Amino acid sequence: MGCCEEDAVLAAKVLLSADLRGIDSHGIARLNGYVRLWEAKRVNAFANIKIIHETLSTATVDGDSGLGLVVAPKAMQIAIDKANKVGTGWVSVQNSNHFGIAGYHAMMALEKDMIGIAMTNASALVAPTFSLERLLGTNPICVAIPAGKQPAFVADLATTTAANGKLEILQRKNQQAPLGWIQDKYGEPTSDSHALKDGGALLPLGGDRKHGSHKGYALGAVVDIFSAILSGANYGPWVPPFPAYVPMPENMPGKGLGHFFGAMRIDAFRPATDFKKHMDQWITRFRSSKTIQGCDKVLIPGDPERESEEERKKNGIPLLSVVVDDLVSLSEKLEVSFMAQSS
Amino acid sequence: MGCCEEDAVLAAKVLLSADLRGIDSHGIARLNGYVRLWEAKRVNAFANIKIIHETLSTATVDGDSGLGLVVAPKAMQIAIDKANKVGTGWVSVQNSNHFGIAGYHAMMALEKDMIGIAMTNASALVAPTFSLERLLGTNPICVAIPAGKQPAFVADLATTTAANGKLEILQRKNQQAPLGWIQDKYGEPTSDSHALKDGGALLPLGGDRKHGSHKGYALGAVVDIFSAILSGANYGPWVPPFPAYVPMPENMPGKGLGHFFGAMRIDAFRPATDFKKHMDQWITRFRSSKTIQGCDKVLIPGDPERESEEERKKNGIPLLSVVVDDLVSLSEKLEVSFMAQSS
Repeated sequence: MGCCEEDAVLAAKVLLSADLRGIDSHGIARLNGYVRLWEAKRVNAFANIKIIHETLSTATVDGDSGLGLVVAPKAMQIAIDKANKVGTGWVSVQNSNHFGIAGYHAMMALEKDMIGIAMTNASALVAPTFSLERLLGTNPICVAIPAGKQPAFVADLATTTAANGKLEILQRKNQQAPLGWIQDKYGEPTSDSHALKDGGALLPLGGDRKHGSHKGYALGAVVDIFSAILSGANYGPWVPPFPAYVPMPENMPGKGLGHFFGAMRIDAFRPATDFKKHMDQWITRFRSSKTIQGCDKVLIPGDPERESEEERKKNGIPLLSVVVDDLVSLSEKLEVSFMAQSS
Repeated sequence: MGCCEEDAVLAAKVLLSADLRGIDSHGIARLNGYVRLWEAKRVNAFANIKIIHETLSTATVDGDSGLGLVVAPKAMQIAIDKANKVGTGWVSVQNSNHFGIAGYHAMMALEKDMIGIAMTNASALVAPTFSLERLLGTNPICVAIPAGKQPAFVADLATTTAANGKLEILQRKNQQAPLGWIQDKYGEPTSDSHALKDGGALLPLGGDRKHGSHKGYALGAVVDIFSAILSGANYGPWVPPFPAYVPMPENMPGKGLGHFFGAMRIDAFRPATDFKKHMDQWITRFRSSKTIQGCDKVLIPGDPERESEEERKKNGIPLLSVVVDDLVSLSEKLEVSFMAQSS
């Protein structure tokens, strides 16, 4: 796409981290989608990412329509730099695009003995409680917290009952979704995994009012406001869609989509060694909890992704043949050599 | 209890704000509980609340076993003062007690054109996903965001499917709870609202793994870690119980219970007038969403509490007769005159 090598390597690292961590929906399978956005002139390969407003602990960043995979780690680095100076750093980003997994960006803080926070808004697929319309994205939040001898605590979650990637797996297999994941075009709960494509909507975490969907809605709304109204990006139903063939919403009130990042230095609150000792005790206690019959163990947020990463670093990342075909076509179109290894 | 008038007035204001906002479980009905904690020497009426560690944007506060109703607004004020200077302020609190509703503290930021955040841990009533044991409190999060002509956005939510106060209402009426609120002593889902008292547990937002309870668990865990591991308070199953008659956990790793507060100046990101204009547009768009048949309107977080406040400021706060009896006994015991008005 013509961007500098540094940016290309960074984007590749973010995509690969998703595949390694088992979040296949946000990995290399999406490369084609990013290229299509570039072809549609919605991604700028030569983005001039810059701070447009700042204080000692905050910054607002203009992503200049850059690839979110590049804009996000650069914005997170600004948060980390500010935390180094005044204890915490908080960065809201406008004029960006899809940033891959939130986990990559939040986890940048870990090696600095900081807590990392990353969130982003996304195009509207989710109906707030009582709403027939889709007004929010799956708006994920990641919080990464360092520990001592134990691996870090990494909570990375869409604010919906289930991430769209989980639903897409069911759609491909023509399987039913649990009630509470989606509503149909009339707003009725449905287990038809294809209902989302027929005027339905994903549901906020909780599923329905009786089970707390107003809380999932509120959390998704907070992500939208921190990411886009603080920064000047588009929000709610005006967030640009990821598929390049979907027309842009009318009367967009901001620029691109928005992210929000935070970094908090542990030793801005207490010595990092004390904190880590207690994090280890927290993790050990939760992991050793008595379990419900039939359940193996209580997991710590980040366990499944870390286990996937260990396994895939050894054995490689399995790719669906449609993804491989997609990559081969891409390599031909962009005249990049493609090295596939058959397994 | 002998504390200074300023602290007494502040505590009364926090309790009354809960009653006004319709959160009866956290209002004046709890006064007796706080007094019992004082009688058990677990609340210090002469607390010397002080900063024990700080940077330009952070502070760790020792609540000196004070009433949380007093410690919390003072800690939130420190966050606001820091935000005034460097854009944001973040305060973790150890050695505190139950702080009433999170909303009161977070909303202190609104009149300063800041976003306010408040969270607290609480004694363990909640079983993480797959756990038979209760390891987390209902650990609420409040985020208060100023708007322009529209009323502020105030999301105040327990990280469980339902707050314990909601379950207590069902228990008093001997009614069943929706599945997804609690599990029984075997970890099985149950609709018996009394199961919590018989070895059961509240469930994290989501209810079960299939419906995203691992996300509610992760959010409650983040609240626990920010409130207690950053500050040096007790965490997980070691958080002191609210009822004074319940024995303290053994081998407590910290001091009292913990809170976490944040304040972000809007104009640390962009001019407040621009932000408010877009918040008004966000709120107006969501409120005017097409609704599901049978649903009146899409609510904005904070709508029900604000409507309750308007109504109760006009018509008064209805009190159950057991609460009035409790207050009369308290007034006799503490030799304070009690002015009750029959309705």
